Amino acid sequence: MRQLSRLLTIITLSASVLLLSACGEDTEQTATHNNPQHDKVYTLTLAESWPSNFPIFGDAPKKLAKLAKEMSNGRLNIRIDSKNKHKSPFGIFDFVKSGQYDLGHSASYYWKGKDINTLFFTTMPFGMTADEQHAWFEYGGGNELADKVYAKYGMKSVIGGNTGNQMGGWFKKEINSVADLQGLKMRIPGFAGEIMAEVGAKPVNIPAGELYTALDRGTIDALEWVGPALDLRMGFQNIAPYYYTGWHEPATELQYLINLKSLHSLPKDLQTILITAMKYSAYDMYARIEHESAVNLASIKTDNPMVQIKTFPKPVFKALRTANDKLLVELAAKDPLSKEIIESQANYLKKIRAWTKISDQSYLNSFNK
Amino acid sequence: MRQLSRLLTIITLSASVLLLSACGEDTEQTATHNNPQHDKVYTLTLAESWPSNFPIFGDAPKKLAKLAKEMSNGRLNIRIDSKNKHKSPFGIFDFVKSGQYDLGHSASYYWKGKDINTLFFTTMPFGMTADEQHAWFEYGGGNELADKVYAKYGMKSVIGGNTGNQMGGWFKKEINSVADLQGLKMRIPGFAGEIMAEVGAKPVNIPAGELYTALDRGTIDALEWVGPALDLRMGFQNIAPYYYTGWHEPATELQYLINLKSLHSLPKDLQTILITAMKYSAYDMYARIEHESAVNLASIKTDNPMVQIKTFPKPVFKALRTANDKLLVELAAKDPLSKEIIESQANYLKKIRAWTKISDQSYLNSFNK
Repeated sequence: MRQLSRLLTIITLSASVLLLSACGEDTEQTATHNNPQHDKVYTLTLAESWPSNFPIFGDAPKKLAKLAKEMSNGRLNIRIDSKNKHKSPFGIFDFVKSGQYDLGHSASYYWKGKDINTLFFTTMPFGMTADEQHAWFEYGGGNELADKVYAKYGMKSVIGGNTGNQMGGWFKKEINSVADLQGLKMRIPGFAGEIMAEVGAKPVNIPAGELYTALDRGTIDALEWVGPALDLRMGFQNIAPYYYTGWHEPATELQYLINLKSLHSLPKDLQTILITAMKYSAYDMYARIEHESAVNLASIKTDNPMVQIKTFPKPVFKALRTANDKLLVELAAKDPLSKEIIESQANYLKKIRAWTKISDQSYLNSFNK
Repeated sequence: MRQLSRLLTIITLSASVLLLSACGEDTEQTATHNNPQHDKVYTLTLAESWPSNFPIFGDAPKKLAKLAKEMSNGRLNIRIDSKNKHKSPFGIFDFVKSGQYDLGHSASYYWKGKDINTLFFTTMPFGMTADEQHAWFEYGGGNELADKVYAKYGMKSVIGGNTGNQMGGWFKKEINSVADLQGLKMRIPGFAGEIMAEVGAKPVNIPAGELYTALDRGTIDALEWVGPALDLRMGFQNIAPYYYTGWHEPATELQYLINLKSLHSLPKDLQTILITAMKYSAYDMYARIEHESAVNLASIKTDNPMVQIKTFPKPVFKALRTANDKLLVELAAKDPLSKEIIESQANYLKKIRAWTKISDQSYLNSFNK
């Protein structure tokens, strides 16, 4: 629509100029009554870590693009390239840093090899839930710490959609004790994998496309993916009888990455449109995935009654938590900014968990009585 | 694209005609070079139920107004009148219905005397938590049902900010059994008050400004307000030793009311800006109040160590729940749309609570082990 009115402007002005020049007058001030910034169309490119049409995760940047276009009346276009196009799902950080893409949609913890302090802005094992972490990001100092980490690279990271509490994973055999974890071959990447190694398991990395076969053939004994909303399309419910509840990703928040130069090249109104649409699409994704998890969990119960949902026994949970705490102490000792972020999260968690305990947790547990 | 080239043809032809119609004529078509809709400033008025500068609740429409102005580059202004100005905190429904105000910020359950079906769009005793209810509104059919209820009045209701799980209230004496509720004078308005009456308590209605004195002097034995984020400014922690956890408002969602004529008078871009800013400010308010609850709960523990946080014993919770279920059956029998909404909520709650149970609830309880 805006493009159309721009064309109208150009054409009508040309006509006027034609007319006026024929009459030998000069009234060019008619063109200045509008800020030229507000006729210009801006196109930003966004690289996402996901394949084309990946459900839920991929719908967040689609919603962002649609809203940005509508709210700007066509002046802000966002062109999304999926990994099918750019071929580099873990190249998003570098793409946005270099300005090859203006924006990214990915997850901060993917970049821990580039900068260990990016690790803390997705989710932490035994850490905050989605609601607790949203409060930390927006009102508890989380965003300011993320800015500190990302500004070094000329970037900004904004909440990109929460997956909710992720399931502990699909297991071929039951886990009754810490001994059952010894030598257990499990696909569990990142920091959670390090914790698993610490308690004696063997974390392995396997591309998504090979996971089903690896689990089916016993190349691995277990794997974690996301949760009911996305796991069923992988078929794991047909080959693993135990589906464990979570501990390692209680609030996985995806990330919008923004190249700061690209952001500042936009007029102020489009900057606000961009950031607001990002955050709104993030919150909306959380509502969406909670819905999809509920619907898909119901379908497991109907279609795969042999799947048993289990929770790790107390000693296993404790052993994993002890390993986690040990690794965090090591991280904090290595880098002052890591220490600052780890302490901010620990202090905030203590305060807000006290509230969660007497609000949602107490309420939910009242039904068990 | 075809529309565009048709327009090009028309305009070029008009230009030619103009040219041909010779000089010295009026050239007012220069004013048409921009869509006049996109130069016009729209001002919408919003009436809120809260007093001026009421924290958290009142900050949501302030954030809405700020974002609407910024995103529209000053083309969409929202003028907020607090109850100090319009004098009618419970007049918002009629204000927006009549078009006296374009928008409102209030709570749907305030209107149950006007239309019983407005009751269901805030929170229900023993109902969904905030995350569950957001999923219901946005993806589980909740918004469609709200539209059905509000369209009759030429209005639309949009999420307006969640308070989180509200506390059960401040009590002068401990509640150890259902017998302790007999004759208990408690300020607890609305449907929750009806449930309390059902189990033998005496719900009373007292204006906010008189609550402290009423509780202090024993005119009432108990009251419910919101939660730590807003209760402490009322001073209740100084006069009531028992602070009970919640059951009656697990997810109080405030409401933006929109006059549909006012909405449709806006160009499409401003409509999207308005709705997106409303929903974003709603989600943001939930993050904010979780933060404030955490901070204020910590201060109770420090400054008011005599306050005991308690949960109703099992038989009390059960008695209240039985009364709730009975009243819902009565409501469903009276009105087919009530029945439809009650059933939608009950079915959705069953499905999504199964997910909450194995995600956040299971995770949070693992720490208690």
